[in-house]
Amino acid sequence: MALKPKFAKESLTINTEFVLPNDTNHLENLFGGRLLQWMDITGAIAAQRHSRRVCVTATVNSVSFKYPIKNNSIVTLEAKVSRSFHSSMEVFIDVFVEDQVTGERTKCNEAIYTFVAIDQNGSPLPVPELIPETEDEKKRFEGALRRKQLALILAGRMKPEDATELKNLFVHD
Amino acid sequence: MALKPKFAKESLTINTEFVLPNDTNHLENLFGGRLLQWMDITGAIAAQRHSRRVCVTATVNSVSFKYPIKNNSIVTLEAKVSRSFHSSMEVFIDVFVEDQVTGERTKCNEAIYTFVAIDQNGSPLPVPELIPETEDEKKRFEGALRRKQLALILAGRMKPEDATELKNLFVHD
Amino acid sequence: MALKPKFAKESLTINTEFVLPNDTNHLENLFGGRLLQWMDITGAIAAQRHSRRVCVTATVNSVSFKYPIKNNSIVTLEAKVSRSFHSSMEVFIDVFVEDQVTGERTKCNEAIYTFVAIDQNGSPLPVPELIPETEDEKKRFEGALRRKQLALILAGRMKPEDATELKNLFVHD
Amino acid sequence: MALKPKFAKESLTINTEFVLPNDTNHLENLFGGRLLQWMDITGAIAAQRHSRRVCVTATVNSVSFKYPIKNNSIVTLEAKVSRSFHSSMEVFIDVFVEDQVTGERTKCNEAIYTFVAIDQNGSPLPVPELIPETEDEKKRFEGALRRKQLALILAGRMKPEDATELKNLFVHD
Amino acid sequence: MALKPKFAKESLTINTEFVLPNDTNHLENLFGGRLLQWMDITGAIAAQRHSRRVCVTATVNSVSFKYPIKNNSIVTLEAKVSRSFHSSMEVFIDVFVEDQVTGERTKCNEAIYTFVAIDQNGSPLPVPELIPETEDEKKRFEGALRRKQLALILAGRMKPEDATELKNLFVHD
Amino acid sequence: MALKPKFAKESLTINTEFVLPNDTNHLENLFGGRLLQWMDITGAIAAQRHSRRVCVTATVNSVSFKYPIKNNSIVTLEAKVSRSFHSSMEVFIDVFVEDQVTGERTKCNEAIYTFVAIDQNGSPLPVPELIPETEDEKKRFEGALRRKQLALILAGRMKPEDATELKNLFVHD
Repeated sequence: MALKPKFAKESLTINTEFVLPNDTNHLENLFGGRLLQWMDITGAIAAQRHSRRVCVTATVNSVSFKYPIKNNSIVTLEAKVSRSFHSSMEVFIDVFVEDQVTGERTKCNEAIYTFVAIDQNGSPLPVPELIPETEDEKKRFEGALRRKQLALILAGRMKPEDATELKNLFVHD
Repeated sequence: MALKPKFAKESLTINTEFVLPNDTNHLENLFGGRLLQWMDITGAIAAQRHSRRVCVTATVNSVSFKYPIKNNSIVTLEAKVSRSFHSSMEVFIDVFVEDQVTGERTKCNEAIYTFVAIDQNGSPLPVPELIPETEDEKKRFEGALRRKQLALILAGRMKPEDATELKNLFVHD
Repeated sequence: MALKPKFAKESLTINTEFVLPNDTNHLENLFGGRLLQWMDITGAIAAQRHSRRVCVTATVNSVSFKYPIKNNSIVTLEAKVSRSFHSSMEVFIDVFVEDQVTGERTKCNEAIYTFVAIDQNGSPLPVPELIPETEDEKKRFEGALRRKQLALILAGRMKPEDATELKNLFVHD
Repeated sequence: MALKPKFAKESLTINTEFVLPNDTNHLENLFGGRLLQWMDITGAIAAQRHSRRVCVTATVNSVSFKYPIKNNSIVTLEAKVSRSFHSSMEVFIDVFVEDQVTGERTKCNEAIYTFVAIDQNGSPLPVPELIPETEDEKKRFEGALRRKQLALILAGRMKPEDATELKNLFVHD
Repeated sequence: MALKPKFAKESLTINTEFVLPNDTNHLENLFGGRLLQWMDITGAIAAQRHSRRVCVTATVNSVSFKYPIKNNSIVTLEAKVSRSFHSSMEVFIDVFVEDQVTGERTKCNEAIYTFVAIDQNGSPLPVPELIPETEDEKKRFEGALRRKQLALILAGRMKPEDATELKNLFVHD
Repeated sequence: MALKPKFAKESLTINTEFVLPNDTNHLENLFGGRLLQWMDITGAIAAQRHSRRVCVTATVNSVSFKYPIKNNSIVTLEAKVSRSFHSSMEVFIDVFVEDQVTGERTKCNEAIYTFVAIDQNGSPLPVPELIPETEDEKKRFEGALRRKQLALILAGRMKPEDATELKNLFVHD
């Protein structure tokens, strides 16, 4: 029996964190490692909300730390499943800081993690398909296949010539 | 005046951690997020040892969590700079668990992070060139350029056709 | 110059937490003290979003712990300013757990905290008025005055006979 | 068989804490939430000492944060059961800071929590009666009934006209 | 001008801790390292109360871990200065667990630390003399000199033949 | 059947830590208690590597804190078993800080802990003999017996006149 597909927005998980002294380096900026941990928890809950299963981190892809985040900042993480495959889910985590005076939110990071739904023995379990609705959700849904092929190639589990989606990036007829 | 090149082994950083209950999920396996944080700290110290500068995390690439790590395990992280570019350093972090009875080490994770050396205003600073010595160090050194091009393409800062190193993966004349 | 009034919803702060072993007692239920701390942080950020000032906890009122929350639960805290006085803000924090299988949210706690906006010397600063919109927001807005009088009486700073709002609870003509 | 009544002083629990950077805000003052957590643990141990049972937090009443506590301060919490009801105990927690130079103690907070003794299924268990001895213990013992009625009214579980103790505050014949 | 001598009891510092899962090993017993840290903080506060100065740990002597302490135990640490020398203070830290049912306290550890009072540059500052009152305080006061000589010998800063107090242990005329 | 003896170097355990604000006092120097905890964990892993058993801390001997370690320092701990007795192991833990600019390592602490290998009931288990190889390992191996006698005397479990190794320090014929 197939699992009922679910909307991307059903997995939305919001986390508001406060940057404390122990989370920061010499320059009083947030450590990358602390943010990676917050992203992981927020993303795992989003995956759990989509699959209603215990989920574990499978891979981390392309996290980049563009803007330093200061001590005492309010940081908001928003995670949403972007696409599900058989038992894995790609999750986007958007990170924002807000200006203390104006309250304006600035996006400072974007991360992509993959989680797998597992049973009590650690074996993978099927997860529902994802239905993207907004423009942004659709764009991320489409890119997910390309990113999956790339990961498989880098892991040596797919031949580059079979990565049809990805190949188009490099080969223009 | 050029900085004196340094050997890969000079940046070797070893970290031995003990998995505690708060680091684990329902199944008593280590959370991915906690491991990401340990990797980040160990990698940052390796980058700091190579550059003798404060280093901040720039990107995380291709971390995959293949084997679950149980509660109470002894986990060893070994980080070493694999290649330096102008002010950035690619760092490999190898993660091992050891069997309680035999003491045998099993490699359970491999991660690649990039760190940037910065001054007190957060501006990038030049770092020494890296000299690889062992077979493994040389292989990782060579792959670093390909990975850098890939990151630039994914970030939209390089055209696929200019990524000469990477293109060879997909296009065979 | 008066500060521009703000809507209750502008201060909404959502926090999603994962209950870990160290947060729980013998029976593997969440400690009250940990929840009080999460409520405090989430509420303080809501007050900060309303006032755009540094806010400190002034009082905690009527927190009750009705339902035990199990280890490994996903807990969502939602804080919103319910009314502002000169420099203080009453904040409601609603706490929900969600069922792992159905995803159904159950409200398990409701807390009321008061925060004060302060300057760098710790002196109170004026905050914007609050405009309630929904039925719930209006009901909480109206009750806030009664709760404030009660707090002043308990602190011995107001005479019971001057607490017109509260008196009606006990004296029916 | 009735439980043997116990003296208030038998439950006295003292906790000496050191305020660390992560416990403080921008102004280097202790966060209310951290103090709430310390109060909860100290109070729970006092309740456990009175009842010799596992105790869980039932309610928090009227905590107010009058004086900011600086980073690196030595904070002493003293908790003592003020009155027991069938299976619940009201606990007062007094908080002091001491001057680094003179050693003089200043009371900076007073909190009232209620704890419930439970068995392994979470069902309430009877607790011994409390015998107050000092003036202060007697005053707190007497006020406890009034506070209990107030809590029941606020929770909608008692009609204001039945709260004989409390009514006297508002209605003078 | 000489500092006014102080009684041993004036430095008494009590700390009540609750053993949490992260503080315990496979066998659910408290880690030695966590107890060492609690002892250090409690002892440092006792030294600070005696000297009214910032105090740092100088040495740790003869801590032994005789009885395992179980998860969820209530642990009480009591620290008191046993003797002061020019700028250093020897502090005894007694550790007790209490039985959940009977409330009976069992002493499970005894540790001796030495702390030094320092100024803002880290230079040692004189501290008041200590006046022992009880039998126990006097016994510890007298033993302190012997322990100090032993530490100096082990550190190679005193010749064994000059350690008159200690020598008597080994040489009986 | 006798356990196969093992070399000292087989137990070598390296731990690289980063000093964070919460680990430091007013003067921004590392707390002794935090270092004691790091030493304990690193030493316990070394003992576990020698014995391949769960090990618990038995005693801490002669830790001295000579040099203050600043906030943000990189601290390296190196632990190695120095000698094993029937079921206990003496472990040396050497602590180094490294200069940010030159990378030069300075030894700032040396600690000696004793660990005991235990089974699941907490009963002691035999451990392999230790074979010292380097000059340093041999010197520490030889001193271990003297230190063991001293500990037994201080604990009142050996008469000073039976401590043949130690007696020589004080009595020269």
